[in-house]
Amino acid sequence: MSPNQRAPSRRARAKSEEFPTPTRQQSERRLNELARARIVIEEIWPRIDCGAFPLKRVTGDAIAVWADILCDGHEIIGAAVHWRHQGTRSWSIMPMRHVDNDRWRGGFALERAGLHEYAIEAWRDLFATWRAGCLKKRQAGQPVDVEVLAGRELVERARDGASRTNTRALDALLAEIDAADDAAAALLSPGTEETMSRLGPKADVTRSATFEVYADRPAAAFSAWYELMPRSQSGSADRHGTFDDVIARLPYVRDLGFDVLYFPPIHPIGRTKRKGRNNSLEAGPDDPGSPYAIGAPEGGHDAIHPELGTFDDFARLVAAAQEHGLEIALDFAIQCSLDHPWIKEHPEWFDWRPDGTIQYAENPPKKYEDIVNVHFYGEALPDLWFALRDVVLFWIAHGVKIFRVDNPHTKPLPFWQWMIREVQTRHPEAIFLAEAFTRPKMMKRLAKIGFTQSYSYFTWRETKPEFIEYLTELTQTECREYMRPNFFANTPDINPHHLQTGGRPMFRARLVLAATLAGNYGIYNGFELCEAEPVPGREEYLDSEKYEIRAWDWDRPGNIRDDVALLNRIRHEHQAFRNFSGLRFYNAWNDHILYYGKMTPAMDSFVLVFVNLDPHNVQGADVEVPLWEFGLPDHASIEAVDLVRDTRFTLNGKVHHIRLDPDESPYAIWQLLPRRSAP
Amino acid sequence: MSPNQRAPSRRARAKSEEFPTPTRQQSERRLNELARARIVIEEIWPRIDCGAFPLKRVTGDAIAVWADILCDGHEIIGAAVHWRHQGTRSWSIMPMRHVDNDRWRGGFALERAGLHEYAIEAWRDLFATWRAGCLKKRQAGQPVDVEVLAGRELVERARDGASRTNTRALDALLAEIDAADDAAAALLSPGTEETMSRLGPKADVTRSATFEVYADRPAAAFSAWYELMPRSQSGSADRHGTFDDVIARLPYVRDLGFDVLYFPPIHPIGRTKRKGRNNSLEAGPDDPGSPYAIGAPEGGHDAIHPELGTFDDFARLVAAAQEHGLEIALDFAIQCSLDHPWIKEHPEWFDWRPDGTIQYAENPPKKYEDIVNVHFYGEALPDLWFALRDVVLFWIAHGVKIFRVDNPHTKPLPFWQWMIREVQTRHPEAIFLAEAFTRPKMMKRLAKIGFTQSYSYFTWRETKPEFIEYLTELTQTECREYMRPNFFANTPDINPHHLQTGGRPMFRARLVLAATLAGNYGIYNGFELCEAEPVPGREEYLDSEKYEIRAWDWDRPGNIRDDVALLNRIRHEHQAFRNFSGLRFYNAWNDHILYYGKMTPAMDSFVLVFVNLDPHNVQGADVEVPLWEFGLPDHASIEAVDLVRDTRFTLNGKVHHIRLDPDESPYAIWQLLPRRSAP
Repeated sequence: MSPNQRAPSRRARAKSEEFPTPTRQQSERRLNELARARIVIEEIWPRIDCGAFPLKRVTGDAIAVWADILCDGHEIIGAAVHWRHQGTRSWSIMPMRHVDNDRWRGGFALERAGLHEYAIEAWRDLFATWRAGCLKKRQAGQPVDVEVLAGRELVERARDGASRTNTRALDALLAEIDAADDAAAALLSPGTEETMSRLGPKADVTRSATFEVYADRPAAAFSAWYELMPRSQSGSADRHGTFDDVIARLPYVRDLGFDVLYFPPIHPIGRTKRKGRNNSLEAGPDDPGSPYAIGAPEGGHDAIHPELGTFDDFARLVAAAQEHGLEIALDFAIQCSLDHPWIKEHPEWFDWRPDGTIQYAENPPKKYEDIVNVHFYGEALPDLWFALRDVVLFWIAHGVKIFRVDNPHTKPLPFWQWMIREVQTRHPEAIFLAEAFTRPKMMKRLAKIGFTQSYSYFTWRETKPEFIEYLTELTQTECREYMRPNFFANTPDINPHHLQTGGRPMFRARLVLAATLAGNYGIYNGFELCEAEPVPGREEYLDSEKYEIRAWDWDRPGNIRDDVALLNRIRHEHQAFRNFSGLRFYNAWNDHILYYGKMTPAMDSFVLVFVNLDPHNVQGADVEVPLWEFGLPDHASIEAVDLVRDTRFTLNGKVHHIRLDPDESPYAIWQLLPRRSAP
Repeated sequence: MSPNQRAPSRRARAKSEEFPTPTRQQSERRLNELARARIVIEEIWPRIDCGAFPLKRVTGDAIAVWADILCDGHEIIGAAVHWRHQGTRSWSIMPMRHVDNDRWRGGFALERAGLHEYAIEAWRDLFATWRAGCLKKRQAGQPVDVEVLAGRELVERARDGASRTNTRALDALLAEIDAADDAAAALLSPGTEETMSRLGPKADVTRSATFEVYADRPAAAFSAWYELMPRSQSGSADRHGTFDDVIARLPYVRDLGFDVLYFPPIHPIGRTKRKGRNNSLEAGPDDPGSPYAIGAPEGGHDAIHPELGTFDDFARLVAAAQEHGLEIALDFAIQCSLDHPWIKEHPEWFDWRPDGTIQYAENPPKKYEDIVNVHFYGEALPDLWFALRDVVLFWIAHGVKIFRVDNPHTKPLPFWQWMIREVQTRHPEAIFLAEAFTRPKMMKRLAKIGFTQSYSYFTWRETKPEFIEYLTELTQTECREYMRPNFFANTPDINPHHLQTGGRPMFRARLVLAATLAGNYGIYNGFELCEAEPVPGREEYLDSEKYEIRAWDWDRPGNIRDDVALLNRIRHEHQAFRNFSGLRFYNAWNDHILYYGKMTPAMDSFVLVFVNLDPHNVQGADVEVPLWEFGLPDHASIEAVDLVRDTRFTLNGKVHHIRLDPDESPYAIWQLLPRRSAP
């Protein structure tokens, strides 16, 4: 040790020990891990949260897969998408193509409902690289003797690693090369290129992480819902409705053009602390209670309220609905009445207070004393999770494949993620609608973790800028990859103030907005009658069906059944409405007129919608007909069909004037028919 | 079997078998995995490629960590960042705060160089939730007897799980509650709140993935480089320069204000196929060859070219540079001359052609017959990787901690990712500059996988819109998190045409642009002499030092040494220039005048730069002085210092006129000194 050196102090040693030098073994392990992925496959798109959740599509769609793919050096690379359906062991392979700037594109068609997984593989294409270099040298007049040897070696290498069939093809190719006068020409021929692009050696094959896409059946993305309370279908407020009464109502719902008929819970209703009419704390002896207070001595979530009928009656209803082109959707509401059998059978699924009483639902200082919530953790895990899953499977076995889920944001997110996958693995056609009205990120998370459809903020969007902002977010940002809003114009819980004050013109405007802006939309019965009688000062219905049996006059004057039927027919006849993200807002120089186009990606279905948001006044506006969407100049002409009046006309030039009288019609819908240029 | 039932057909069975129902065990495993993460922690920001790569910062920075954190229900949640330096076992904890809309923010300070890892933990805060509910009930006048029992239970639960010290505090708290006249008030007191926020029970603790941030020493983000060829420093083209000649040049470089002195390779140079002057294929007997043809019988990458000196000479040079405030940077160029010892020692590291000859470097039809490339896979893995790592560690042991890496994009990316981490684990202060001029995504990937700094497209950006677009991308998009460009105004390989044609005004303009737009910038010697003699028609230097020894007159008339010294001084004196992303372009109504502000986040250092991009004509423009950045109205006054002329003046109002005469000064730099309002 020289005089300038000192033994390191204890403190310095302690400090240096904080940087533990990796052992040769550790270094080598990391080296081998990293070396495995020589080719970069990054920026895979579309994806949700780094691939944590499946993209959503419907059967019949093709999924495009984009990625940046790059490698050191100048070698030519190849890439392919490997994909399979959840139930298939083997992978299918679709080649990818380089687009530009190291961006590649591939994809595959979704033919079966269910979860699909896919990954990208990329490799260095040795023969293509050799070929490009050899060609350049030959073109530059350089000798290629050694290159020919190298090229032939690549064919041999392919042959040595090939299956029996391919061995034969590659042996033939080798014989051809050896017999050729110009071996270089034979190696560089298009035939050799083709064979070697399929069978040639792939070096440094690198595989990306695996991603998922869920293919729902088309109804997941396009459906019109009609909600009613079965017990209110007898035609008399004095008689509890039955499933047979609902069967009698099916032609009405069918004629309105709906696809889905949705019922609030149909299970036995608790008696203890039952709510009375208008949500009063004391129920009268004949009050039926809220169907959301689920469970009574007759049974819980897997039972039917006796006054509605039997399981046989229910089976007849499901079949009759199907005959009318309607599918039944049921409510899945996890809370229990105080009389639910689970409370006795599984006290460990519930919260108990220090005084030994059960913890009823509350949101302090509000109390919901007629219901109790299960908890999902502690002793409830995993049995409660399985029990709830089995409730859903039970109703699927009884012919129901659509579930509207009540308040999912108050139950653990992992539960939904698990339960929905559990069900859809067995029944890929199952649909879950999340009834969450809560904070935006919770709404989005529920959609990401598996809910097929989502309630939305539609009911609280009223002005033109609000609609443009909200629909732009829904249709033009990442959330279109996983969130499918279902625009309900009203619900038993929401009697929005604009309907209370806007009258019939407002009902018609909101109907058009819901039906044309969203793939999925719905109304709760009474909407078509322009019913909006509120609990004074609140956005709730007076004499709500939630707490009593009602009878309605379905032919009530001023009803808008014609509009409903018309809108549902137009939706079905024009593909544009099935393409939720095919939405563009256009200029209408009037803040009360919302004006937008709906279109398919191929632009072969193109519809313009004009809505007067002001229910009280005639509004007019100059509007721009989007000739540019078809590559037409501003002075061009285009054919149009008024889908409401069923008239055909020609629009000359870009700017036109539209006038919408709320009393006459607060909306207009035009189909554009651009003349296809001769081929 | 009823008459309506049939045994399923074989096909139907096969189909159903494709959906294998998960076993109870599989379902339960997935349930338990998902259940563990009850709380959502998502959209963690900043991050690079989903967290695949460390963010880049320098010591002294604080890193902000943002995330969306949410949970089912209405419980109050808590969150914290857990972080540690690479060499420390224990985690430090910094609480996070809710900002808005489920967005949380936390962070920590980077005090030591090296890799740091961090994760977010979130939990349901049972006591805070209890407290909020109990308070609301009390305020609503409801009885809270049972709540008091529940609150006390939470304190007990905390006590039961606490460390000895905390047990004492919690026992005291329990005693206090029990002794209180109003137990509810004691439980709801601020003191109890504080204690329980620290020690109270955390439910459903959920931890995010782990992310990384690398803290470089500050020189990684802020440095001025001067490049020279040691062999050209003798003052005579007839005598090979030595390290001692370089030592004699240190005062010159120091006076120019540079921080880093960078040399192309200093290793023995091959003789076989040596390149002659001006890259000719035949070298004369006295031609020194290209320093990039590394390796000769005297040694390879761990040897010094004998004519430059010995390792002792090198050690003196390193020490002398340090005394002059300069740090030596070396070139790390992996290619070998045909005389490199490795070719005989490790033939398995090289490619051999079918005719038995070594595969020299080529990019068909171009051939680089004086050098050969190693390959990194096959038999070269892992020994070559370790050998190359050890070359870097060897030079670090000789006092070099900055490496300019030649053509990294032609070597496997996993090698760099592995090698840089290997070195920086041992030497967190090591800096690697990627000399890649290639496609944008490759440039970015090199930065992501660990290169400290990157060569850039600066040399090919010439017009105002080009600068605005490129600098906006570099400073305002995600790549600012990982890419630190080093703006070289010229290099031995690049004699850009704008310098060839723009003369002295262009040299001055390019100097200002490089020095003020980038944290790191550099020049290759001769730039300060306005040297731009090209190989005719090419962006290369005539009589390039790459192939011959040159001697320069450092006092050559027309030199811009004063500008260089001034710019380096201004950069050092104003913090704004250390904040690469603190850049905003402002309005100057003239397409030839580029006008921008540089600023610190706190705006306590704020400098405006005006550059005339036209070397031939006087250009003037109205410009907007950004009073709004300081919250000042358009008619306000602000103090300014002209940092070039060292004058102080007052700017009255927003719009001013600037006039830049290329012959006089093609640039102006003003510091703004807003009057701080009285506190």
